[in-house]
Amino acid sequence: MVRAAVMTAPNAPIEVREFPLPALEEGAILLRTVYSEVCGTDVHLHQGHLGGVPYPVIPGHVNVGEIVDIQGTPVDLDGRPLRTGQVVTFLDVHETCGHCWFCTVAKASTRCPHRKVYGITYPASEGLLGGWAEMIYLKPGVKVLPLPEEVPPERFIGAGCGLPTSVHAIERADIMLGDTVVVQGSGPVGLTCAILAQLSGATDVIVIGGPARRLAEAERIGAALTLDIATTSEEERRERILERTGGRGADVTIEASGNPAAVREGFGITRDAGRYVIVGQYTDVGDIRLNPHLDINRKHLEIRGSWGSDFSHFWRGLRVVAKHGDRFQWERFISRRYSLEEANAALDDVAHYRTVKALIDPHA
Amino acid sequence: MVRAAVMTAPNAPIEVREFPLPALEEGAILLRTVYSEVCGTDVHLHQGHLGGVPYPVIPGHVNVGEIVDIQGTPVDLDGRPLRTGQVVTFLDVHETCGHCWFCTVAKASTRCPHRKVYGITYPASEGLLGGWAEMIYLKPGVKVLPLPEEVPPERFIGAGCGLPTSVHAIERADIMLGDTVVVQGSGPVGLTCAILAQLSGATDVIVIGGPARRLAEAERIGAALTLDIATTSEEERRERILERTGGRGADVTIEASGNPAAVREGFGITRDAGRYVIVGQYTDVGDIRLNPHLDINRKHLEIRGSWGSDFSHFWRGLRVVAKHGDRFQWERFISRRYSLEEANAALDDVAHYRTVKALIDPHA
Amino acid sequence: MVRAAVMTAPNAPIEVREFPLPALEEGAILLRTVYSEVCGTDVHLHQGHLGGVPYPVIPGHVNVGEIVDIQGTPVDLDGRPLRTGQVVTFLDVHETCGHCWFCTVAKASTRCPHRKVYGITYPASEGLLGGWAEMIYLKPGVKVLPLPEEVPPERFIGAGCGLPTSVHAIERADIMLGDTVVVQGSGPVGLTCAILAQLSGATDVIVIGGPARRLAEAERIGAALTLDIATTSEEERRERILERTGGRGADVTIEASGNPAAVREGFGITRDAGRYVIVGQYTDVGDIRLNPHLDINRKHLEIRGSWGSDFSHFWRGLRVVAKHGDRFQWERFISRRYSLEEANAALDDVAHYRTVKALIDPHA
Amino acid sequence: MVRAAVMTAPNAPIEVREFPLPALEEGAILLRTVYSEVCGTDVHLHQGHLGGVPYPVIPGHVNVGEIVDIQGTPVDLDGRPLRTGQVVTFLDVHETCGHCWFCTVAKASTRCPHRKVYGITYPASEGLLGGWAEMIYLKPGVKVLPLPEEVPPERFIGAGCGLPTSVHAIERADIMLGDTVVVQGSGPVGLTCAILAQLSGATDVIVIGGPARRLAEAERIGAALTLDIATTSEEERRERILERTGGRGADVTIEASGNPAAVREGFGITRDAGRYVIVGQYTDVGDIRLNPHLDINRKHLEIRGSWGSDFSHFWRGLRVVAKHGDRFQWERFISRRYSLEEANAALDDVAHYRTVKALIDPHA
Repeated sequence: MVRAAVMTAPNAPIEVREFPLPALEEGAILLRTVYSEVCGTDVHLHQGHLGGVPYPVIPGHVNVGEIVDIQGTPVDLDGRPLRTGQVVTFLDVHETCGHCWFCTVAKASTRCPHRKVYGITYPASEGLLGGWAEMIYLKPGVKVLPLPEEVPPERFIGAGCGLPTSVHAIERADIMLGDTVVVQGSGPVGLTCAILAQLSGATDVIVIGGPARRLAEAERIGAALTLDIATTSEEERRERILERTGGRGADVTIEASGNPAAVREGFGITRDAGRYVIVGQYTDVGDIRLNPHLDINRKHLEIRGSWGSDFSHFWRGLRVVAKHGDRFQWERFISRRYSLEEANAALDDVAHYRTVKALIDPHA
Repeated sequence: MVRAAVMTAPNAPIEVREFPLPALEEGAILLRTVYSEVCGTDVHLHQGHLGGVPYPVIPGHVNVGEIVDIQGTPVDLDGRPLRTGQVVTFLDVHETCGHCWFCTVAKASTRCPHRKVYGITYPASEGLLGGWAEMIYLKPGVKVLPLPEEVPPERFIGAGCGLPTSVHAIERADIMLGDTVVVQGSGPVGLTCAILAQLSGATDVIVIGGPARRLAEAERIGAALTLDIATTSEEERRERILERTGGRGADVTIEASGNPAAVREGFGITRDAGRYVIVGQYTDVGDIRLNPHLDINRKHLEIRGSWGSDFSHFWRGLRVVAKHGDRFQWERFISRRYSLEEANAALDDVAHYRTVKALIDPHA
Repeated sequence: MVRAAVMTAPNAPIEVREFPLPALEEGAILLRTVYSEVCGTDVHLHQGHLGGVPYPVIPGHVNVGEIVDIQGTPVDLDGRPLRTGQVVTFLDVHETCGHCWFCTVAKASTRCPHRKVYGITYPASEGLLGGWAEMIYLKPGVKVLPLPEEVPPERFIGAGCGLPTSVHAIERADIMLGDTVVVQGSGPVGLTCAILAQLSGATDVIVIGGPARRLAEAERIGAALTLDIATTSEEERRERILERTGGRGADVTIEASGNPAAVREGFGITRDAGRYVIVGQYTDVGDIRLNPHLDINRKHLEIRGSWGSDFSHFWRGLRVVAKHGDRFQWERFISRRYSLEEANAALDDVAHYRTVKALIDPHA
Repeated sequence: MVRAAVMTAPNAPIEVREFPLPALEEGAILLRTVYSEVCGTDVHLHQGHLGGVPYPVIPGHVNVGEIVDIQGTPVDLDGRPLRTGQVVTFLDVHETCGHCWFCTVAKASTRCPHRKVYGITYPASEGLLGGWAEMIYLKPGVKVLPLPEEVPPERFIGAGCGLPTSVHAIERADIMLGDTVVVQGSGPVGLTCAILAQLSGATDVIVIGGPARRLAEAERIGAALTLDIATTSEEERRERILERTGGRGADVTIEASGNPAAVREGFGITRDAGRYVIVGQYTDVGDIRLNPHLDINRKHLEIRGSWGSDFSHFWRGLRVVAKHGDRFQWERFISRRYSLEEANAALDDVAHYRTVKALIDPHA
């Protein structure tokens, strides 16, 4: 039997349940979970803020595992057969259809209505399709990436699902050499955006967020200035940013806060003819007011929503962690390890910003 | 003496005054005005909605004139000396500095803080620097374009200042072959955007606006569907658009209405991963509410403000009118000709949508 | 039994052979061929210039057919079940894998090493997988598009495989409103590029090619100038183009000629900081010389190869033909209809430029 | 009197001559030269490979100087008056007209036919308009940037004119996070491109070049692999690159070698659907052969020439050196300092690759 932490319903306590060891269909892979993680989305999932979730579900969408069984000969990206013993990660997004209008004509696969996501859209009744479990069942066609030697599982999970999300957001940001970039939010997505902004040419990266522990991480990974939302007013933050930018504002602002108020603030701190990427508004927590003349039209501003990620972001993210892991040490984002039984505590800690990244170790 | 219509203060009646014939400095040109126009901006100007206007001013920013005097040897774009007798137009935007951060680093010259605009930012005390006058004084360096033979002055003025504005908006819209484009607004900018969208590959162009006379023009110039805001609800319009687009919405929406409510509506009628260009919010008429999760982030939407225009848009616009003038007949946008004495009536007609384009004929 | 024209080996005469009516696997569709076509690629195929072709093959990659049998419930792009009696076309490119590095990371599916193409890369031994046959077998997953009512089969085949190829090339060309575009080549790709360039904003389209019948078509579809390679020298053509462009050259040049010499010429007729799209060099017919300083570096030129097409180009192309069919009348590119028995004559006519587009009617 | 090194004619020895101290016109600035440099262009200039050079000229286009005199109130980019005592650099490119078709419509100011360049296109008879002189005369409107405190003059000159050139080339390269970038050439442009590629997201940077001293610098600044053209064959280099890239080749290749043979090689080492930026072919040293089918069309390759630089590249480059100076230590590219009298030796050392960057100290 395989133990898994199950989210049975919104706001209900997580329960550890046992599942039978699954039989593998052709092309499937069984992983022994090494680590999973708790991300902000799991908090939304628990609070019932995501639509269409087939509770009960096994959470955990970004994971590392060791291959313990394979049926048939699934291959890696270069066509080499995968083999037992390999430590791998896999793209949580599955069944992007490749046939619908969004996949083929719009080339916007993150808006494919058929896509499924491990740990979010599969019910526990369909099996071990989330990472808060001792084993994970990879369906045929799930995109698997072996972890390179220089990426220890802790480091990869420290980056977690914020990594591909941030790669996508940064791709949308079109940062140029010498740009000033403001990141709103100091959670995993915000911090990794702050890293990737530096790696994309920004020479001045400012992080707005909190609490202090997260801002300390922001400074550690290279933010030139951090602004604590608990101790500064919106007006003070705006002044500090204008002051550093010749009165113009940031060339690029990236919203990764989850707070709608941040979106309103973002317009005011971005320069005319700049770019504003919104990646943190993952759930609906209400409307904001904005002035279409001042905030968008006269400002000649460009605003880009960034939803989800595809395999390219996942692949690129892993390349970046492999190259720059010693410099940025994503594993230091991990505040604490939690067993399956501690999943409720983990969710609570994430919900209350007591952690940057919470790691789930199903074998702890 | 030269007669000119002068806007003395916000909301005050326009007065016809006399000015002395100016002496030309080196590089300057004197035009005998053929036609000027009234655009929505002139209504804003008259209502006092534009900041920093040095009343009294001579309005009229897009104009056609005949060269009657030249000092020195100002040249056209190809370096050929301009000569008396040529019928020309000129870029109203002047003194874009070419030296500031926005001009050089951001390459966003429409946000240059030093730019001046004929008919808007020059006080009447500085001379004949607007088109509602029998003569126009072109300062050295003003960018002049001779009208090609195939472009009669009426046709060019029928397009008017909506032409470069629309070329800029369409440039920001990145329309692809086969796209569905919704244009919000059926004034001069909206109608020319509807034309240029077709010329840029859109195969289905929908215009939302009113009143009926303007929508008849929209149909004449090729809109496949028009939706009258007086006779349809926002929800009906949304349904009509979704119905034509497989339930997805427009690939590209262009806001050219001047009404903040249109901006809120625009989010709902644009497809996921689509593009929304906002060009009509020329003055501040209040805030709107939007939902950053539903309208931007989950939608993976791209929103682009488009402010003003530069010489490239002016030049490209004239090329388009020269090529496609017989097909679209912009002169038919002109509802009536007004003398200088009739400027108040002209403003009133534009303000109340009784016209598509009002032409000023200073020698009438 | 089903009759099909088979290319048995390079340079061998085409033979009409009989094939058994196939049994349909789940998801497959059987078409009664309405029309197929002969394109330049078929000539290359016959001359043995394409690598890795599994002769014998049934040629014919762009086709129209009527659904006569369906197994299971394959659906169209909007998820509606296809049904017998529908007249459809389908994307010849099949089995683009969706999993390899080119499909996922590079997002360059036309370079997917796993892709297969109807009429080119399937051997006749695998069945009716080309359009020069009375019936066509559509494998499960083949992307099918019903022809809209306003597109008669002749019109669609008149555009043929040059349509998606041209949509892709024009997408790479980034044409702006008012641009001058030179198209090198007056075959089906060149002519459709000349059409699509106009539909994408070009106001001056020049076609270089021959013979006279093709250039007459170029004029008919809106080329402002045609230059016959049989009666003009490279230098004369260059002069004519510079003369029309203020001495600068074309903003965008599109090579669709298949002749390597055209590539060398293309550098000289494109303006500094312009764009040069190369789409016609479908087979290896030798090297050219170029000067990297004069032709590329000092010229600040952008050169873009454009290979094949994907479903988006096919879908967009069909939208354009549906909208603009009456204006451009692609069916007039069809010079003659050929029966299966006349396939050799058809190839010969295409090889010797005696046609613009040769139509194959397997039931003639 | 002011001493300057003068290039009197192609291939003639440089002579040190004396010039009178100039009177300053309104808006002009006099610099006491701190350092100038010798770049590859100066070798071409000396060998007579650049067209239209008005010999005799005072070379030296990228320079650092101290303001010793000012006439009027010229300002910096933020509008602050410049003052004596400031240590500044300035954009060598001057008189980009801002009015011609290339400046306004094409927005390709590096192709403006009116642009002038300090140290290259001004004759010595017009004054101290090059940096190999004790003093430099800055004409009104020359764009001046004060060196930030954290940028010592040696560091800035170590980067030299390769800095803006490389910023422009990297802008054209559109590097994405995780890309493999090959730089061809290990001179100042190649090395700075290798730095900027890393700062723009590349995780694997390979430098092809020589001799060993330059490749040691390439390794110092972070190249993951260097390939010496003296000890490897083209085929060996290609194999090494394919081996590192899953058999695909580099995502982006940047040619910065000046050798036409490198261009031919570049096509073979860049992946399908990749990008190839050509920035090193500054003079005409002959043709190359290429195969338009294999190298461009089937490869779906994008090739971009990159000519010169504008003020944005200069400004961005200085931001990068200010931020990353301690990491990359551009001053270590300086192999030796030369007095004005040693200018001939400096040119000879640069021509024979005995240096990375040669510094001219006019007061030595």
